[in-house]
Formats: sequence, structure tokens, C-alpha cells
Amino acid sequence: MSRPGTPEPALCVQGDSAAGTQDEDAADGTQHSHRMLSFSDALLSIIATVMILPVTHTKISPEQQFDKSVQKLLATRIAVYLMTFLIVTVAWAAHTRLFQVVGKIDDTLALLNLACMMTITFLPFTFSLMVTFPEVPLGIFLFCMCVIAIGAVQALIVVYAFRFPHLLNPEIQGSAHRALYRRHVLHIVLRGPVLCLAAAGFSLFFYPASYLLMAMAVFLPYLSKAASWCRCRLLGPQEPPTPSIELFDLNRQEPLSKERVAAFSDGVYAIVATLLILDICEDNVPDAKDVDERFHGSLVAALRESGPRFLAYFGSFATVGLLWFAHHSLFLHVRKATQPMGLLNALSLAFVGGLPLAYQQTSAFARQPRDELARVRISCAIIFFASIFQFATWTAALLHGPETLQPSARFGGREHAFMFAKLALYPCTSLLAFASTCFLSRFSTAIFHLMQIAVPSAFLLLRLAHGHKEERGVGTVVPRLYLSQI
Amino acid sequence: MSRPGTPEPALCVQGDSAAGTQDEDAADGTQHSHRMLSFSDALLSIIATVMILPVTHTKISPEQQFDKSVQKLLATRIAVYLMTFLIVTVAWAAHTRLFQVVGKIDDTLALLNLACMMTITFLPFTFSLMVTFPEVPLGIFLFCMCVIAIGAVQALIVVYAFRFPHLLNPEIQGSAHRALYRRHVLHIVLRGPVLCLAAAGFSLFFYPASYLLMAMAVFLPYLSKAASWCRCRLLGPQEPPTPSIELFDLNRQEPLSKERVAAFSDGVYAIVATLLILDICEDNVPDAKDVDERFHGSLVAALRESGPRFLAYFGSFATVGLLWFAHHSLFLHVRKATQPMGLLNALSLAFVGGLPLAYQQTSAFARQPRDELARVRISCAIIFFASIFQFATWTAALLHGPETLQPSARFGGREHAFMFAKLALYPCTSLLAFASTCFLSRFSTAIFHLMQIAVPSAFLLLRLAHGHKEERGVGTVVPRLYLSQI
Repeated sequence: MSRPGTPEPALCVQGDSAAGTQDEDAADGTQHSHRMLSFSDALLSIIATVMILPVTHTKISPEQQFDKSVQKLLATRIAVYLMTFLIVTVAWAAHTRLFQVVGKIDDTLALLNLACMMTITFLPFTFSLMVTFPEVPLGIFLFCMCVIAIGAVQALIVVYAFRFPHLLNPEIQGSAHRALYRRHVLHIVLRGPVLCLAAAGFSLFFYPASYLLMAMAVFLPYLSKAASWCRCRLLGPQEPPTPSIELFDLNRQEPLSKERVAAFSDGVYAIVATLLILDICEDNVPDAKDVDERFHGSLVAALRESGPRFLAYFGSFATVGLLWFAHHSLFLHVRKATQPMGLLNALSLAFVGGLPLAYQQTSAFARQPRDELARVRISCAIIFFASIFQFATWTAALLHGPETLQPSARFGGREHAFMFAKLALYPCTSLLAFASTCFLSRFSTAIFHLMQIAVPSAFLLLRLAHGHKEERGVGTVVPRLYLSQI
Repeated sequence: MSRPGTPEPALCVQGDSAAGTQDEDAADGTQHSHRMLSFSDALLSIIATVMILPVTHTKISPEQQFDKSVQKLLATRIAVYLMTFLIVTVAWAAHTRLFQVVGKIDDTLALLNLACMMTITFLPFTFSLMVTFPEVPLGIFLFCMCVIAIGAVQALIVVYAFRFPHLLNPEIQGSAHRALYRRHVLHIVLRGPVLCLAAAGFSLFFYPASYLLMAMAVFLPYLSKAASWCRCRLLGPQEPPTPSIELFDLNRQEPLSKERVAAFSDGVYAIVATLLILDICEDNVPDAKDVDERFHGSLVAALRESGPRFLAYFGSFATVGLLWFAHHSLFLHVRKATQPMGLLNALSLAFVGGLPLAYQQTSAFARQPRDELARVRISCAIIFFASIFQFATWTAALLHGPETLQPSARFGGREHAFMFAKLALYPCTSLLAFASTCFLSRFSTAIFHLMQIAVPSAFLLLRLAHGHKEERGVGTVVPRLYLSQI
């Protein structure tokens, strides 16, 4: 969006710093962390999502029965996908919090961040090892080593940033309790790794204890939050001593950065849309010999055979695209993201990441008409969960009151009904499709395709209806500007 | 980077609009295009890069000779990758230009943009079809249909945005020649599709003409630019009539948006880093049965067999990470991106996208020691080209003078030598490694591993040397702040 004619292109200005200060910052070696953070977001979101590929690549040949060993393999891989998503999301949340404390970066911090990313990308491998060999301590040991390495790098980042305080968030930089802050942040960064160190020790003689400790390390943020909430409910709100007020502000009430939540979500949606076309390009270009022999040289006939796959591709892309669209509309009206919203959003994204599986199920309609009903239901369920958690994110924002949503989207606001319709469209239709397959099981494929065509049209109709309502006088900006043009 | 204690998290403020205006914008249905653009950037960069996967997945079994048919398949796939990268980059550049004209979006534009993305993601498939069956008109026909569909959607976006002028860039919105602008933008958007329409027609009776027309459609922006440059050189600079001055400003001199170039590059680096770990996770978790039978239940022995792959993974991740780091440092000092810089950057990214191939080559050291020398050379060549084009981007920025680079990075600036060293590190070492394999062909693997260890250490040393120089008094900010802490 740079303006033509001006020599300086539009820069992305962060927070309270003006564009003009960038020159001096670059000169003294510090940099705004914006680009490094969006790179980290992209990397982490792709890592979280890409583990769906081993699931979709599980080969089940038509003659082979869907037997125990295949079931076990598939279940293992789905578990790896979901747990990887969860673990990477937790690591991402920790990363977000860390760089809320560290406001600016320099070269050393950028390199340390790269080391941190490298260790995080290795987590899925150690986790798959752990799932495949649950009783061998090596998997546990490697996983714990990874977590400890991540913790060590993050602790280094904290120590370095507190040694050069101009890198810190301005609020902390000016605070009198900086040493207290440092201890507190180090405590948060290191408690997971310490638990994992204990788990690595236990893995040598009593591995079930290791699993317990590792689960604690992963869920610690949620556990501590739930505990403090319970205590607050039981004992009533307490007045903490003075220095703790600041810490409380920073670490409990501090919302997730809305911008980073959006960037992480964008990464997930983008990689999911791309995984779909990758399958098409890799498997559906017919072989030249094959075309000559089986189809007498007719490429059209060869392509017609994989026709349902293209249909499924466009249907799935439309689903991913419209879910992104709903997410985008939602976050336009969100002012800040609270922790429950972040959790619900992560759950929604985990199911969005499962959409390639839904695509694979629907694209197999032509080849294996046998399991049609089950396939349609799996697809509907994935779409339903992806969209219902999106809806739940909105509900959480609504319930939290004025500071999370903009006025126009709240109860009684102008955009409220429109947002409601946008977000309720996918849960309703997928639920309807699922229910109708129970009664009309013979037409399940037709129902599914009908749904995939109906929803985009419904979005368009919704848009037209809303536009019409606006033009009739509720919103007067558009027609006024339009008239001024004539 | 949101500040603790304040109710509003830091928003990404674009250009001349302040954060406070977002509420009203969201209320009248228009939205800042920032998030939609970064989503499009992520999608397009992943699409461009992901076509390397069919190349790396080409199976060459050890007993099979590297014969003609495999060579042809590999060459076809590499050609598909490079051409896809080029075509997607051209489509991305057109998208960038389009949304320099359209400054804000509403729901309709967001949906139209999604339709545009869907058509672009389908391009690689039609292109692979075209390459696999060069003499069948269907591939050409489908490719042309895709380009025409993209052009039609973009034309719709232009027409819609000019119908509701509050969506336009403020400069154009206030201009008296708006109708002229519209005609001009439509002309740019539609000239490629018109050529493709002709190509689709020719494909039915004389297909070589189609290829010529399609190549013209893809390279038209570069051709027209080169032509205008030649004319300018031959006839001397001409004074265009008044309305053309504005158009000239908009369409020729307008630099690429620096922010979008960075976002596109981030996407490529992120997906490349992720493709590496995907291979590890999919192929290197040993099979439970296999471990029992071949390794007598010892998981360590089973993992030791794929040890070189892990080494190769860490080496490749470090390469991708440090190339990103150099790119990041470079763009911190860049003020605006010119078209030659954009082209050189795209070439650099095309080779970065080839890094998974280099990883695959080096990870095969253990299994097929036969072709070691060739593999090391391929890897060195890919790294060399990726980094030399990065260096060339910097050179182009340097040559263009004061408006492209910040003062500290220009000739004689404080950061100049440091930037030079950072960007020259990879080209020099990879060239050195390539050259030394010619003399010491027996130690080629050792040389390559030495390079992969040496470069990160060199980056660290460089950083320390620079930090030391700064502390000795050239930069005085850091020690002063440090002292103030004590």
C-alpha cells in the first residue's frame, strides 16, 4: 500500500515508535522485531500443520482390509499430529510471551532465535519416536533434551536482553524492579525444562513417571492458570504486594498479541491450502505411457478418471478459503485476544489442519465407493469442529465484554447479526449434512457436494443482503461516495 | 510487542492511517488490506516453493542406473519447479501492483481475492500437464484458461474498486484522471489474458505459436520495461503529456512494496526449513519390526544408521537460517525495493527453494557413497547461486544510490563493511568448497561438512568482532546504557 510519488514506501510501524526512528535504530545495531516474529510465526505454524502429511500419506490399498495394524498406524499418526500441534502451539505461546518482554532485537538475538527455531522443528521427530517406541527410554530422553535445549536458548535470550536493557520492552526498561522481572521471566522459561530434566532422569528406571512429568511440562501454563482461577474463586480476590502487581499485569492479564495470533493462523490456513494442490500435482498428472496404453492416447479420458479429485480440490479450497475469510472477519472486530480465545483458536486451527484428510477422503469417492458414508461423515465432522471452535472463539470474545470486541460487533451492534450469520454458516451446514446422511445414506455423496456448493453461494447471498441493507440507509457511506463520483 | 498495562494491544499501523481510525473503518465495511495481503504472500510463496517436492521425491533405487528415462523425468520436474517459481513470482508481482492501486478492501474484494488465489494455485498443475504432454493441446488450453480466469477476476476487482472509490489508494481517489487510471490498470491486467486467449486458439491447429504467445504473456512486464529503457537510451528522455506523468509514476517508477517482498521471502525460507524436517519425520522413524529383527531391539543402533541424515538436517537448517539472517539484515538497511532488486531477489529465492534438493543429496552420503563428489558439487552450486543472487541484490541497491539504502550501509557508512562481510560469506565459502573438491576429490564429504560447521562459526565471530568494535567507541549507545543499569 505504498503511495505513488513519495520516495519512502509505507513502513509497518509498530506500537509507539514512528517510522523516522528506524534509521537510528538500524545504525546502533538494534532492530524492530516485527519481521523476525512473523518469520517465526510462519515457521511454527507450518511445523504444526505439516505433520498431517504422514496421516494422509498412509497407504491403504483397496484389496487390503482396514485391519488392526493399519488402524493402529493411522491412530498413532493422528495422535502424533494432534500432540505435535498442541506442543508447537504451547512453544509458540511461550515464544510470544518472551518477545513481549524483549521489545527489540539485535544480530545476536536473531541468531539465538534461529537456534531456538531449529530445536523446535526437531520436536515432532522426537515425539514420533516416542509414540512409535513407547517403552524405549531413548525417545523420552531425546524429547526431554529438545525441551531442555529450547529452555536453555530462551534463558540465554532473557539474560542477554536484560544485560542490554535497551532491547527490553520500554515498560520494563523504565521499571525499578528490573531484577525482579528477570528472575520471574527466567522462572517461567525454565520451569518446563526442569520438569523435563527430571523426566529424563526417570526414563532410565521408571518411564511412566516420565510421561506424567512431560505432560505436566506441556500443560503447566494452563494448569497454573486454572489453579489461580480456582483460588481466586474460593478465597476471593486478594490484594497482592506492590511489586507483584506489575508482574501480575505482565504475565497473567497480558493478552496474546492479536497480530501474532493472526499471523500464526494465516500460516496454518496457507499451508493447508497448499498441501491440497501438492497432492494434485504429484499424483494426478497422468503417465505418458499409461495414457497411450489404457486410454488410446486420449488425455481427456485419462483426466476424466481423476475428475472427482479436481471437484474435491475446488470444494476443499473453497472451504479453507471461506474459513479463513470468517476468521479474518472475526479478527477485524477483535480488539485484543485473551488466553481462552487463544486456546479455542488453536483448537479450531488443529481441525483446519485436518482438512487435507477430509480432502483425501472425499477425493477417494470415485475409487472406493464402498466406504462412502464413513468418508462423508469424517469430512463433515472435521469441518464442523473447525468451524464450531471458531464460533466459540467469537462467543468467548462476546462474553468477555467491551475490551475484547469493537462496539459494532457486540450485542445490538450494527455488525452483530452479520458476524453471527457468517460464523454460524459452516457449523450449521456441516451438522445438517452429517444428520441428513443418517436418514438418506444412499445420497451421502450428493449431500456433501451440495453442501460444498451451497456454502459459498450462501456467503455471497449474505454479502449481497448485507450490502443491500447498508444501501437502504443503515450505512450511508458507500452510496454517498458513489454519488459523489457521478 | 504489545505494552503491558495498556488496554489496546499494539496494532500494525499502515502508511498514513492512525490506529484510531480502524474502528470506523470496520464499521462501514471497509478494512485495511494488510492481513489479506500477508495471507496472499504466504500462500503464493508456499505454492512457488512446494513444487520442489516432486523433484526431491523422484525415486532412484540404488541398483537402477541413472539412465535416460530417470534423467528425463528429473529434468522435467526441475523445469516445472523453476518455471512454476517464475510464473508464480510474476503473478505475485501483478498482485502487488494491483493492491497498490486498491488501498482498502471490503468483503466482496476479500472473496474475489480468494477466487484469484484458488486459480493461481491451480497453475502448477496445468503447467506440469503441459510439460508432460508437450504436443497435446489440452495442457496449453487449460493453462491459458487459468490465466484468463485470473485476469477476469483481477479485472472484476479493478472494476469493483473503481465503482466504490473509497476503496482506492488515496492518491488515485483524489485524482481528476480516475477514468484514465481505470483504463490503464485494466489494460495492464488484461493484456496477458488476451495473449493467452490467442494462444488457446492457436493450440487447436498450430501449437508452437501458442508457446511463443504464452512466453510473451509471462515475460511481458520485463519485455515492455526493457523496450522502454532501450527507447529512452536511443531517443533520449521524452517529456510525456500531463496525464501520462501520473501514470508513469504509478506504473513504472513505483517500487515494489518492501514489506511485501520481505513477507514473500519469509514464506519461502519458512517452507524450505519445514520441508527438511518433514522428510526426517516421514522416513526416519524406524519401523518397530525392523528394529526387532535387524538391530536386535536396539533403537540406538537403528538411529545410528540414519545418523548422517540428522547431521545433514542440522547443516541444511543452519544454511537456510543464516541465509534468512543475511536477507533480514539486508532488508533492514533497504529503504525501498526497485524492480531489478525484486528480480534478483526472486532468483535468489528460486535457489533457496532448491535447498531441499541439496539436503537430499547430502543426506544420501551414507547410503550411496558412489556419487559423493557429484552430490557435494550440486549442493555447493545451489548454495552458491542462492547467496550470490542475494549479494547481487545488495549490489543493485548500492548502485541505485541514496534512495534505496540507508546512509549507514552505503559506501563509507559504518555498517558497510559488516554488511559486505555478512553477504559475501556464503558465496565465498561455497565457491571455495566447490573448487577444493576439484583438487581434493577424496575428501569432498569432509570439506562439505567443514563448510557447514565453519560458516555459522564465522557468523558468530563476525558478530563478536563487530560488537567489540562498537564497544571500543564507534557505537557508544550500548555501553552507556549498560553502565546506567549498574
